[in-house]
Amino acid sequence: MHRHTFLFLAACFICAAQTSDSQPASSNVRNAEYPRIHSDLRITFRLKAPDAKTVKLHPGGDGLGKEDMKMTQASDGFWTVTTDPAVPGFHYYWFLVDGAIVNDPASETYFGYGRPSSGIEIPEQGTDFYLPKDVPHGEIRIRPYLSKITGEWRRAYVYTPPGYDVNSRKRYPVLYLQHGAGEDERGWTAQGRVNFILDNLLAENKAKPMIIAMDRGYASKPGDPANLFEDVVVKDLIPLIDTSYRTLTDREHRAMAGLSMGSGQALQITLHHLELFSYIGAFSGTIRNFDANSSYNGVFADPVAFNRKVHLLWFGTGTAENALIAATRAAHQALEQAGIKSVLYESQGTAHEWQTWRRDLREFAPLLF
Amino acid sequence: MHRHTFLFLAACFICAAQTSDSQPASSNVRNAEYPRIHSDLRITFRLKAPDAKTVKLHPGGDGLGKEDMKMTQASDGFWTVTTDPAVPGFHYYWFLVDGAIVNDPASETYFGYGRPSSGIEIPEQGTDFYLPKDVPHGEIRIRPYLSKITGEWRRAYVYTPPGYDVNSRKRYPVLYLQHGAGEDERGWTAQGRVNFILDNLLAENKAKPMIIAMDRGYASKPGDPANLFEDVVVKDLIPLIDTSYRTLTDREHRAMAGLSMGSGQALQITLHHLELFSYIGAFSGTIRNFDANSSYNGVFADPVAFNRKVHLLWFGTGTAENALIAATRAAHQALEQAGIKSVLYESQGTAHEWQTWRRDLREFAPLLF
Repeated sequence: MHRHTFLFLAACFICAAQTSDSQPASSNVRNAEYPRIHSDLRITFRLKAPDAKTVKLHPGGDGLGKEDMKMTQASDGFWTVTTDPAVPGFHYYWFLVDGAIVNDPASETYFGYGRPSSGIEIPEQGTDFYLPKDVPHGEIRIRPYLSKITGEWRRAYVYTPPGYDVNSRKRYPVLYLQHGAGEDERGWTAQGRVNFILDNLLAENKAKPMIIAMDRGYASKPGDPANLFEDVVVKDLIPLIDTSYRTLTDREHRAMAGLSMGSGQALQITLHHLELFSYIGAFSGTIRNFDANSSYNGVFADPVAFNRKVHLLWFGTGTAENALIAATRAAHQALEQAGIKSVLYESQGTAHEWQTWRRDLREFAPLLF
Repeated sequence: MHRHTFLFLAACFICAAQTSDSQPASSNVRNAEYPRIHSDLRITFRLKAPDAKTVKLHPGGDGLGKEDMKMTQASDGFWTVTTDPAVPGFHYYWFLVDGAIVNDPASETYFGYGRPSSGIEIPEQGTDFYLPKDVPHGEIRIRPYLSKITGEWRRAYVYTPPGYDVNSRKRYPVLYLQHGAGEDERGWTAQGRVNFILDNLLAENKAKPMIIAMDRGYASKPGDPANLFEDVVVKDLIPLIDTSYRTLTDREHRAMAGLSMGSGQALQITLHHLELFSYIGAFSGTIRNFDANSSYNGVFADPVAFNRKVHLLWFGTGTAENALIAATRAAHQALEQAGIKSVLYESQGTAHEWQTWRRDLREFAPLLF
């Protein structure tokens, strides 16, 4: 029996008897019967396009497959395809209908690839660290602000932990947490489930209560493509968070992490501003061409001073991120040889996808503050 | 000169010189050049669908037009159409590509019609009451909860006014505010701009600081289609809000309003539970077949008692909501004849769309508490 089949059936036996071999994905909109997840994690997708000539399923990322999959038309105008067993986690996807990019009306959309994109949640059996449980819950707060840097309205998504409103004198450390390319400030909540991950860690006493601030990693002035995100973080966002929330405002209580493009931003912004940050997390991103004397303006040149200042320099990568895992291991080794302490976490079997980054956060957050 | 043209040019002169006759809609995703709004509020939509046979623009609601509009294909694979001048406000839309429902990759999606649907924001010249301004801002808080009624996870969107976190002893009245059919708890924030409307009213001292709680108007147990939303409000949501936020918990400080389907829910829930509510708002909804002795279990039978208990019974309708405006005027008159005080607000020139409901909220909120 396939491993997924066994685990899936075991979970079904626990939660509710399922008579069918498949059930609607939890990410479907209310009452949508498709996409359906089979017991072996094959997925059947369906789209109504009665007059189309060709319809394909396009997977975003590797979790649903690496190639576009041709769908076949039934007499009722619906096109369907069933994939091979999927990797558990969150996967973007869309359809190609006679060459047009088409989101699935039956799934929620998530901001990725620079636009709203369909997504599907594939359960990972035996794992519930990012699911809502009957534990105390924090909030995600949407806070608009006018950027002094770009002159435009922006918004931060801010996680406040359970109990934040109860004890009005307690102050909290802050993790700044960034999405990847083509995503935005909503990503860590909608795709990443940041609030449930933290709620669950806190319920088990595995992490310290913290505020998590998430912003859009793109920031430019109208007509000027330069990305001013570093300035936005330092001059807009940190002051906004420190004046709007009960934060601990010293560098000992401020961390930054990000995934993919966001890992590069986290490394750059923290290593440029060690007066502001003392914990650093790079999820699916690494330091390339490490040189102790020149990388990041020579911040690594004095390893004793660096190790004293930086309490955590953390790299996480999925073992299915082929080129990246080798580069990350190499950087970790080079840092070690230069006397710089860092942590390397490898997420088993996952690729450049949100399941890797959910696991990153689960492992990273307990090491903070 | 068309009225819209004049106002639009005047606004452009004030905000920034525009050399082109059209500009990207504010609702476009970052860097998307289409849809484009012309100075006379015609809209040009564009979609890439190189192999499609037919592509149409489908307006959701009347603001962009009442009929599907055929798009024409250029040699580069893009299909375009330019509409007649649009009604200002927020409008849903999508494309029909060889019969398939296709959201516009260039616009944000909004939950409407039971699925994520594209939307476009058409500016109303001279009006900025729902736009972000440089005034103190409240927050929208996303709060997950496990429903005792349905056994399922739900979430409330909760507006807390500016200053909520500053004075930790102040308590606030609560408005429960509902979306329309096919929408969900996100509607009043994403489509309605509830937070900016309240922030702006509060900055002008036109409304009392209040908490606004918004939930999904659908609530059913797995396998049972009955909508248990009234029970969810009374037994889940009100206790959640009253225990999670610093609320004033008596009926004198609790209001409920809703739009379209939500107006029916607001009337039903409040009139069934006058022990809980004393302010009532029906946006684009009315009481049909009013009978003082039998409507809503006879709650109107004693007008003196009703008027003493209910501080506001409010009906709002757009003058372009043809059948509804007559019915609403008739109900208002029937209530008056029965000695029941109510307020009738008519939104000039708007239909069954969000611009009506934004104006409803602007007029309704100042009358509360």
